[in-house]
Amino acid sequence: MKHLTTMSELSIEEIKDLLQTAQDLKSGKTDNQLTGTFAANLFFEPSTRTRFSFEVAEKKLGMNVLNLDGTSTSVQKGETLYDTIRTLESIGVDVCVIRHSEDEYYQALVSQVNIPILNAGDGCGQHPTQSLLDLMTIYEEFNTFKGITVSIHGDIKHSRVARSNAEVLTRLGARVLFSGPSEWQDEENTFGTYVSMDEAVEASDVVMLLRIQNERHQSAVSQEGYLNQYGLTAERAERMKQHAIIMHPAPVNRGVEIADSLVESEKSRIFKQMQNGVFIRMAVIQRALQTKVKRGEAAYVISH
Amino acid sequence: MKHLTTMSELSIEEIKDLLQTAQDLKSGKTDNQLTGTFAANLFFEPSTRTRFSFEVAEKKLGMNVLNLDGTSTSVQKGETLYDTIRTLESIGVDVCVIRHSEDEYYQALVSQVNIPILNAGDGCGQHPTQSLLDLMTIYEEFNTFKGITVSIHGDIKHSRVARSNAEVLTRLGARVLFSGPSEWQDEENTFGTYVSMDEAVEASDVVMLLRIQNERHQSAVSQEGYLNQYGLTAERAERMKQHAIIMHPAPVNRGVEIADSLVESEKSRIFKQMQNGVFIRMAVIQRALQTKVKRGEAAYVISH
Amino acid sequence: MKHLTTMSELSIEEIKDLLQTAQDLKSGKTDNQLTGTFAANLFFEPSTRTRFSFEVAEKKLGMNVLNLDGTSTSVQKGETLYDTIRTLESIGVDVCVIRHSEDEYYQALVSQVNIPILNAGDGCGQHPTQSLLDLMTIYEEFNTFKGITVSIHGDIKHSRVARSNAEVLTRLGARVLFSGPSEWQDEENTFGTYVSMDEAVEASDVVMLLRIQNERHQSAVSQEGYLNQYGLTAERAERMKQHAIIMHPAPVNRGVEIADSLVESEKSRIFKQMQNGVFIRMAVIQRALQTKVKRGEAAYVISH
Repeated sequence: MKHLTTMSELSIEEIKDLLQTAQDLKSGKTDNQLTGTFAANLFFEPSTRTRFSFEVAEKKLGMNVLNLDGTSTSVQKGETLYDTIRTLESIGVDVCVIRHSEDEYYQALVSQVNIPILNAGDGCGQHPTQSLLDLMTIYEEFNTFKGITVSIHGDIKHSRVARSNAEVLTRLGARVLFSGPSEWQDEENTFGTYVSMDEAVEASDVVMLLRIQNERHQSAVSQEGYLNQYGLTAERAERMKQHAIIMHPAPVNRGVEIADSLVESEKSRIFKQMQNGVFIRMAVIQRALQTKVKRGEAAYVISH
Repeated sequence: MKHLTTMSELSIEEIKDLLQTAQDLKSGKTDNQLTGTFAANLFFEPSTRTRFSFEVAEKKLGMNVLNLDGTSTSVQKGETLYDTIRTLESIGVDVCVIRHSEDEYYQALVSQVNIPILNAGDGCGQHPTQSLLDLMTIYEEFNTFKGITVSIHGDIKHSRVARSNAEVLTRLGARVLFSGPSEWQDEENTFGTYVSMDEAVEASDVVMLLRIQNERHQSAVSQEGYLNQYGLTAERAERMKQHAIIMHPAPVNRGVEIADSLVESEKSRIFKQMQNGVFIRMAVIQRALQTKVKRGEAAYVISH
Repeated sequence: MKHLTTMSELSIEEIKDLLQTAQDLKSGKTDNQLTGTFAANLFFEPSTRTRFSFEVAEKKLGMNVLNLDGTSTSVQKGETLYDTIRTLESIGVDVCVIRHSEDEYYQALVSQVNIPILNAGDGCGQHPTQSLLDLMTIYEEFNTFKGITVSIHGDIKHSRVARSNAEVLTRLGARVLFSGPSEWQDEENTFGTYVSMDEAVEASDVVMLLRIQNERHQSAVSQEGYLNQYGLTAERAERMKQHAIIMHPAPVNRGVEIADSLVESEKSRIFKQMQNGVFIRMAVIQRALQTKVKRGEAAYVISH
């Protein structure tokens, strides 16, 4: 059994294993070891994309899926997350996917529960499967991370994506640049160098935009103003390297952090990221529930 | 790949094909070509009946089902319907069923997306699978549409059922009558003739009642007053032709548009309509995802 | 077809059959007779535990599952529960699980509908599958009910668990004690004797705690005060018989009706109850949909 709560708990070897497994699954490799097992998706914050991506991944693995919408449940009766998970464990759930607004909600849990917890986003903390699907998309493009320059743009301070990606990309040998309004710089995130948007765009192999939270943003600058000053305009995209790609964790604010016309342009890998997300999540679930046979260890046995 | 957004886009030949396929499925014919594919049901307006009917249809076809309740999702984050569908497409969804409060929400979409969209009701627009299940129920009864008189009663102006059915029934050779309060007459719907309730009841082979939206209705006349003036009372039902049937798209307001005692009377086909709806939706999904082999074209290949 | 709405409608023989079937299923016995059939879970009150427990049970039986959250549906359009169930029946649902806030909501229904209704809790009425899982847990422990003393603690008056369990335990030969604040005594429930918490704890083989509804409770006594006066403290647990066990229908208010440290103590069967619940619900669904072959009657035939 293996939890996945942050990127930093994964060794480079484990990351490469996960990317390889995801690639194999994308190429059509199937595996029915998990058929009939149970996954529970606990989303205490709304999310279409991530929840559906996990749900598709689970169903492609033949799993049964329980969806808990955190706003209409016993959780309202004051039950702790720990008791909720112990309950799910008792009724036969094999793996829990959790999104929660609290930073590091999983800290106490992971040593107490007997089923793996897969973090689908914690507050302003991490979002490891998003990070892994970003890595997969970059690797598919460049076949390496070494020497690649990835620039991350926008609200660095509050972004789970920036947090997860900067550390792991640096560890994998890539160079990370940040840009965005100065009030969103994150002094605790030391894995990137702050540069201007224009400088970043020209230097990058990967231009990774972050979603602007409109509600937070209002005080700073208008939406149009944001695009011109900090976003990826069509004009800036022209100055990208010829082989460079555009990424975004989505949902996209068209015309705010990125010009509408670029979202599905030739350079964009935004929808490919989503596609890769399903295979990454399948790989992460397989890792959570099995000890890989190739390592010579016994396979995890699912019993009900 | 074939969308279904309105009845008018279906030729008579296609309608007959769909009714035949639905009848075959009702008779027990099975087909596992869609096993393991993914359907997404996007309901931006509440609906038990239609959503569950589609969900049963999908599961009977062996499909995996994703349910998106439009009130608790990323859609709230301001994502467009187009981006939502492109996302679903990217994560492996094969067909989208959509109910939306906006008239013709699908207009721009259908030429832009790569998976079929099945309209489960748009604003005051159309509801084609409801129309098809009505046709199936009528055809089961009379084995023809030619020369059949169908009267539609109630809020003609705001009814998706009236809009979809009047056009197609006329095209199929039936005669359409309308009745109801004068403020609900629809001058743009030229496929029916307005008559009194009493006149309609005696002339019809099919008495098709519409649901009264209680909230809209209050200003006009009391509920009891409505039944007596515009609804199907037990006394009026006595004056129906001996072979004539009662239909209603449901949910029924018992005692408003129809007397309570008639809902499950011998003449009523209301619950049979619901039963037929599942088979119609199975047929529509099959049409959406495959080119029929019998036409000599290659079958649609589902790849994941 | 067999409804299950209260414990009192089950004979001792039927209860023993259900416990035996549940035990067989827990031991790994499988049965695929219900594969492909449809269950609908209609929860008009929020519940994680019971809904998920039924959903796991249904999926382990190979059933397709429809979940209706009673707050976002056509039910809001004023449709009666009867019409909702007739609709589900029409679209192919084989069994309905219902939780509803109205006492005995099922009274009129059970003679009118053609699919079995399984009561998952009605107002302050009954919760028969909870009662059955309690019986299973007690029987697993003591291998009999005769001569066993079971004490039930807390809000006897408003508890579905107290109501269902006191009657059936008495019928099965156990002795029932009650304790709790005097304003929560239930004069209509004559199956138990009121004693003090201290007296009950020392006399019991099973100490069964009820959940305190915090909102109701405030007027009476503080949470800490409640634990000390009426709850199971660590000190009181010390005075329990050596072989005695602790039960609770959950969700638990840790530190209110039971000391935090006891919830997962050696004496506690709280999570085992949840585990048993899945197998009890599988057995109840099987009973609802089949006439047992061993009784020489024809098996219920599922047709779609």
